[in-house]
Amino acid sequence: MNAYRSSIVRIPVPGSASPLEVGGGSFVLIAGPCSVDRPETFYECAESLKAQGAHALRGAIFKMRTKPDSFQGLGREGLELLAEARRRTGLPVVTEVVDPRHLEELDPVVDVYQVGARNMYNYELLKELGLSKKPVLLKRGFTAYLDEWAHAAEYLLRAGNSNVILCERGIRGFDPHTRNVLDLASVPVIRARTGLPVIVDPSHGTGRKDLVDPMSIAALAAGADGLLIEVHPRPEEALSDADQALTPGEFAALRRKIGRVRTALHAEEDLA
Amino acid sequence: MNAYRSSIVRIPVPGSASPLEVGGGSFVLIAGPCSVDRPETFYECAESLKAQGAHALRGAIFKMRTKPDSFQGLGREGLELLAEARRRTGLPVVTEVVDPRHLEELDPVVDVYQVGARNMYNYELLKELGLSKKPVLLKRGFTAYLDEWAHAAEYLLRAGNSNVILCERGIRGFDPHTRNVLDLASVPVIRARTGLPVIVDPSHGTGRKDLVDPMSIAALAAGADGLLIEVHPRPEEALSDADQALTPGEFAALRRKIGRVRTALHAEEDLA
Amino acid sequence: MNAYRSSIVRIPVPGSASPLEVGGGSFVLIAGPCSVDRPETFYECAESLKAQGAHALRGAIFKMRTKPDSFQGLGREGLELLAEARRRTGLPVVTEVVDPRHLEELDPVVDVYQVGARNMYNYELLKELGLSKKPVLLKRGFTAYLDEWAHAAEYLLRAGNSNVILCERGIRGFDPHTRNVLDLASVPVIRARTGLPVIVDPSHGTGRKDLVDPMSIAALAAGADGLLIEVHPRPEEALSDADQALTPGEFAALRRKIGRVRTALHAEEDLA
Amino acid sequence: MNAYRSSIVRIPVPGSASPLEVGGGSFVLIAGPCSVDRPETFYECAESLKAQGAHALRGAIFKMRTKPDSFQGLGREGLELLAEARRRTGLPVVTEVVDPRHLEELDPVVDVYQVGARNMYNYELLKELGLSKKPVLLKRGFTAYLDEWAHAAEYLLRAGNSNVILCERGIRGFDPHTRNVLDLASVPVIRARTGLPVIVDPSHGTGRKDLVDPMSIAALAAGADGLLIEVHPRPEEALSDADQALTPGEFAALRRKIGRVRTALHAEEDLA
Repeated sequence: MNAYRSSIVRIPVPGSASPLEVGGGSFVLIAGPCSVDRPETFYECAESLKAQGAHALRGAIFKMRTKPDSFQGLGREGLELLAEARRRTGLPVVTEVVDPRHLEELDPVVDVYQVGARNMYNYELLKELGLSKKPVLLKRGFTAYLDEWAHAAEYLLRAGNSNVILCERGIRGFDPHTRNVLDLASVPVIRARTGLPVIVDPSHGTGRKDLVDPMSIAALAAGADGLLIEVHPRPEEALSDADQALTPGEFAALRRKIGRVRTALHAEEDLA
Repeated sequence: MNAYRSSIVRIPVPGSASPLEVGGGSFVLIAGPCSVDRPETFYECAESLKAQGAHALRGAIFKMRTKPDSFQGLGREGLELLAEARRRTGLPVVTEVVDPRHLEELDPVVDVYQVGARNMYNYELLKELGLSKKPVLLKRGFTAYLDEWAHAAEYLLRAGNSNVILCERGIRGFDPHTRNVLDLASVPVIRARTGLPVIVDPSHGTGRKDLVDPMSIAALAAGADGLLIEVHPRPEEALSDADQALTPGEFAALRRKIGRVRTALHAEEDLA
Repeated sequence: MNAYRSSIVRIPVPGSASPLEVGGGSFVLIAGPCSVDRPETFYECAESLKAQGAHALRGAIFKMRTKPDSFQGLGREGLELLAEARRRTGLPVVTEVVDPRHLEELDPVVDVYQVGARNMYNYELLKELGLSKKPVLLKRGFTAYLDEWAHAAEYLLRAGNSNVILCERGIRGFDPHTRNVLDLASVPVIRARTGLPVIVDPSHGTGRKDLVDPMSIAALAAGADGLLIEVHPRPEEALSDADQALTPGEFAALRRKIGRVRTALHAEEDLA
Repeated sequence: MNAYRSSIVRIPVPGSASPLEVGGGSFVLIAGPCSVDRPETFYECAESLKAQGAHALRGAIFKMRTKPDSFQGLGREGLELLAEARRRTGLPVVTEVVDPRHLEELDPVVDVYQVGARNMYNYELLKELGLSKKPVLLKRGFTAYLDEWAHAAEYLLRAGNSNVILCERGIRGFDPHTRNVLDLASVPVIRARTGLPVIVDPSHGTGRKDLVDPMSIAALAAGADGLLIEVHPRPEEALSDADQALTPGEFAALRRKIGRVRTALHAEEDLA
């Protein structure tokens, strides 16, 4: 599998001299609620994720929602919540950006900009993010060709930002049993194509909490450099995507299993 | 088919008191090159389209291109070309908008804002266009559910802009013979669902010049309120989408056939 | 459109010296219930279709049903019903064949063998039908590439049967509003590719009675050589596909509209 | 994962009192060439697979090929090759059946009947196989809904054959980098839905030899009960699917890695 090894993206860790490395053999766990809603719930989630070994905290304050009357995120009011969770835990913060005009405000509290599936083709946004030096997590569009995804990454790279992490999050399928079709074979293919680290979002990729565990391990086995997972202290209270969030306890069990399987996979590589 | 009749969107016609009506029984022909490149070629195209009976002129100056090194459109330099073509022909101008920050500049020369397939999910752009009163041509996303398309239109409607025209432009398919799968059954379905007029883009919908004629008539037969067609005086010189553009002469032949078929379809309706 | 003109398949008409020609400029209407159930209903349907100008009668006695406990057709008991309807109306009979072992029994009462979407890849069945000289109506598989469809036709042609009619019946899509995505651009493409006549099934292609009329006219406009339409005297009593069947009266109205549009399309061709 | 545990299908092993168990916690490796061609190559492949720990031998003598002029398999002449490889190795033989009329001849040399993706909807074949008691390996159709796949299995089960193994082999996608989209989330879902064991075919599922290793481990991680893998002593000489076959040595390395990851996964389960 060495042929597929990617570049390394370094995410600064608040209050630490050692950055979080994505790519190059590590396996990062970025976790958190789909959207940031109540302050205390978010802090509780962040602190339990820190305790359970998550490497970075995700939480959207600007949401892309299909329906205009769905909860659209806290918006600017959420900035202080992200900053506070970051202070309390020391975890780098990953949050979605949906408009180039938001970058200035987001800059002080964001460690990684996430570009969602709906914005993979939003080249004006990508050009603007390319002028930043902050890491960008670029999700694959709903039915993006791998070449289109690679070209979207090039919009960032050519504008000068080489800190690009790709994220497979499932492609649109026809079967109603899962929210999307998680295309794990895309992981080694797009990494070989771009040389960039690739993580997987099994939460949106399946839309089903009971599938997050098996597909997380499958993503690891397929060679992913990490996971983006929805975790919520009480999923039933979440304002979006309640059906697909793990509890912190389930996240911890998954993390232990990942550790064991990584050891087994690496043992094999050493022998090879 | 009366059950499916839509609302009417009125596009102001430069120098005329009578607007161009889209929906409600008319059939509009919006034509022009994929992208505006050389001034004289564009004016020539605009003038021959006017002579051949086109109702509005399309031409992109801000292009969405998959690859960052493809021709991205003339950008601001193209504004004057659009304005001049509009002055010479009196045709309303339809052009793509890709960034909310471009609206102010585009406003003086644009009669209809086009939102391309890649931006159907760009809700920040839609919210901004919803604050305008100008008609918006909203293309269906590459694999948008009809409900997602309807919800994208609601972002415009709820922000206060009721001048929304939908455009079916083909969905992503698996067969390499056509660029997309033109989903003509979507036309009556989305119109019944939204009450908005629906036009069809057979040029992007097939990617093949030889299929533009049959699929244009098929779109009319399926109940479309008009067409968005690529026309170029010398398609082989076009900087984008050369394979799918008609010549003005081919456009004129298509327009005559459309007239004949419309008469046949209306005769039937009168008897019913 | 002459470039696309196909070969002509001749279907013998019971008690007549003139065969029914499919391809070469004609437009055939093959109609009938999805499955043959009650004798009197079937004869009533056949007779009203004859009166309304249908050219051939469809009716399955061996059905392909997804669930093993769905109505599977009358089977052998239906043979006499097909024969009797044929005697009463003089219409050629089109019926589905699902097993090479059924051919001997079907032979005396069948004028055209239909191969359904589920059997397009059933090459053993195709090889057997290739040894017959009877016309075969070969439907496109659920997500067949156009090349696969052409290759399936070659199984028939190479075995010696050149009487092949293709039928576009919609491909599997992701949107729940229609049963399938009717891919009308496939009509001119597959005809140019194979030289065979191509008809369209708007009933299965949409699954919605209200879309059969617009998509039938659209199929004609796209250049189809005919239609395969579900008609039932009382659709609400049908044992399968009740939602997509026209009544004989609706079929008659559609036939008149088709006549008018064909005249308009041919007038254009004469001028060209 | 216990909630997902399936029934157990027992495959008789030639010359042994202990059957091969599929489902219930085991992980079976069925391997062999796509099609049986030269006798000595096939025997060599079978013997090296036996030596490397494969549990059953696959090899088609009746092939389903898209083009009528592609190699269609040895047909009846291959029966003796299957029988001889079985005698030499003691491995149960899995071979594809494409026509109900072939069952009588295949019966003496076949331990598991494979139904390919193209025949998942061939209900007449399924009904006939349902009358047998031999295990049936039922592949998912090219774009079969999970419900359709489950219903196809019911055709076997209701006819009296409960020895059904399902096989995910990828669904048709739009991206040209892989032959199919291997839908690993289908594994836990279809097993919970049917209670049947589910194996995965990473060779057809990706069409790329370099993806067989990562997707095999991913299939194990997703909960599959085994793999169906193409192996050929000299892939470049294979008459079909040369690009996706492993060598016996690569198969052996994969088997060792699988063993290690299974241990890691089971350790986790014991703790849970």
